[in-house]
Amino acid sequence: MLTALELIGIAAFAASGALAAVRSRLDVFGVIVLALTTALGGGIIRDVLLDVTPPTALVTWPYLAVAGGTGLVVFLFHPTVAKLRRSVLVLDAVGLGLFVTSGTSTALALGAPPYAACLVGMTTGIGGGALRDVLLREIPLVLRREIYAVAALAGAVIVALGDYAGLPAEAVTITGSVVIMGLRILALWRGWNAPTAPKLDG
Amino acid sequence: MLTALELIGIAAFAASGALAAVRSRLDVFGVIVLALTTALGGGIIRDVLLDVTPPTALVTWPYLAVAGGTGLVVFLFHPTVAKLRRSVLVLDAVGLGLFVTSGTSTALALGAPPYAACLVGMTTGIGGGALRDVLLREIPLVLRREIYAVAALAGAVIVALGDYAGLPAEAVTITGSVVIMGLRILALWRGWNAPTAPKLDG
Amino acid sequence: MLTALELIGIAAFAASGALAAVRSRLDVFGVIVLALTTALGGGIIRDVLLDVTPPTALVTWPYLAVAGGTGLVVFLFHPTVAKLRRSVLVLDAVGLGLFVTSGTSTALALGAPPYAACLVGMTTGIGGGALRDVLLREIPLVLRREIYAVAALAGAVIVALGDYAGLPAEAVTITGSVVIMGLRILALWRGWNAPTAPKLDG
Repeated sequence: MLTALELIGIAAFAASGALAAVRSRLDVFGVIVLALTTALGGGIIRDVLLDVTPPTALVTWPYLAVAGGTGLVVFLFHPTVAKLRRSVLVLDAVGLGLFVTSGTSTALALGAPPYAACLVGMTTGIGGGALRDVLLREIPLVLRREIYAVAALAGAVIVALGDYAGLPAEAVTITGSVVIMGLRILALWRGWNAPTAPKLDG
Repeated sequence: MLTALELIGIAAFAASGALAAVRSRLDVFGVIVLALTTALGGGIIRDVLLDVTPPTALVTWPYLAVAGGTGLVVFLFHPTVAKLRRSVLVLDAVGLGLFVTSGTSTALALGAPPYAACLVGMTTGIGGGALRDVLLREIPLVLRREIYAVAALAGAVIVALGDYAGLPAEAVTITGSVVIMGLRILALWRGWNAPTAPKLDG
Repeated sequence: MLTALELIGIAAFAASGALAAVRSRLDVFGVIVLALTTALGGGIIRDVLLDVTPPTALVTWPYLAVAGGTGLVVFLFHPTVAKLRRSVLVLDAVGLGLFVTSGTSTALALGAPPYAACLVGMTTGIGGGALRDVLLREIPLVLRREIYAVAALAGAVIVALGDYAGLPAEAVTITGSVVIMGLRILALWRGWNAPTAPKLDG
């Protein structure tokens, strides 16, 4: 069940990377590389920070197959996928929820203190999208709009607090994921944005 | 004493990241993420290269609190902070001096050869600023202007030579830091730049 | 023999990084940093992914000397080097072949499964160029044009298959390298590009 959801999240992240790559006129291999990077980059950064080597994402072939296959499908049928943008964003919220909570849990299990685990969890969730945007020469969207980083933070904190309180890990992970997904979907639906600072003169 | 200076350096790096993020219209969470990345990114890269995991910066809460708190303060009061730009640059020189020399010392202590330790030390000092600029879609300032990389190199070489000569570590670290700070502040004050190549035709 | 070729590959990668840096108006230290990053970045990423620390490239001074020295030479004589662009691209193909196959072999030797070793090998070959382009605010060329990533993939797959079939490592490495070099040089000569997706409306 969790694994099926995880693969859905990976496919959604891969689709967002591949769509952005198609828009930037990358060739078919570039599109697949972007799909892999967006879907697996956050987990790879997490594993490098926690010294899990080689990174799980590189040695788990279903992850690679789903991410790479999604990239190829998007390359071939991208006008259709682009029309599904709204659905991709909802699935992306599912992926974000799972990646952040699993990243936080992994860090806690390896003995990181709670605040470090939250940061690692957030990095797991938003690292892939940040890599995608940096490679395509954009300022990472996750830092600019639509309650992305803060939804990730909320879920990570729930997992860390639940762990600290000794609550059952599964319930905590599910709660954290649902909160992230809910915040993201609400933010998309209502057009919520976090505040930006008033413009600087000069 | 050293720790107090270190926190000052972290705050200065965080302020430079947060100011740049405000200028790029990131939201409040993006500003805090940039503050954390700029202040702690160099040290995290150092620890990943040297296999210190999880990276010190992630598990030392005062670092996180100072960097994140500085980001929030800059977000709220950025017109004032922007006016203090000159002071931030001087404090940034303090941070650069401490980060480069401590990065070099750490690498030497973990058995890296002197030239590798110098590279790791430089990366510790300029990595955070480079990440900041890459995330905000700028060519890293540290590679373009104002005797930044070379000041870092000079300090790193002093630490490595001093270690090789068996001089007392503290004296060597302080000397290296002071040289870096002095070079940076002189370069800012006198407008020194390293040479660039004459323009290519075509 | 292999080592001599490796140093030629490093010099070619360093020259491509330094030329791009000169074009972006970096100062002399920025040019040398870009030369080092382009030549050694892929290998450093490989070592971080495989937990070889400190990374081989940082502790092997001939690599550093060749890469940094090439950067300095390009800075001083860049109009001449720019005229040699075609030769640099051929040498770059040599470097790509060696880096991809050695990266794949290293990963296999450290116990990575074949598909993971291929990804690590490709990353070794194209990571430095991707870092160069990200630092200079370009979308990585290797993802956009001229059969670069796919040549790397072909060579990596040959090494992985040969290892799986138990063929002698040296023969396999040489074959993989020659295939990569041949594909790249053919692609450059004939102007081959991988397909891009038709333009999206809107």
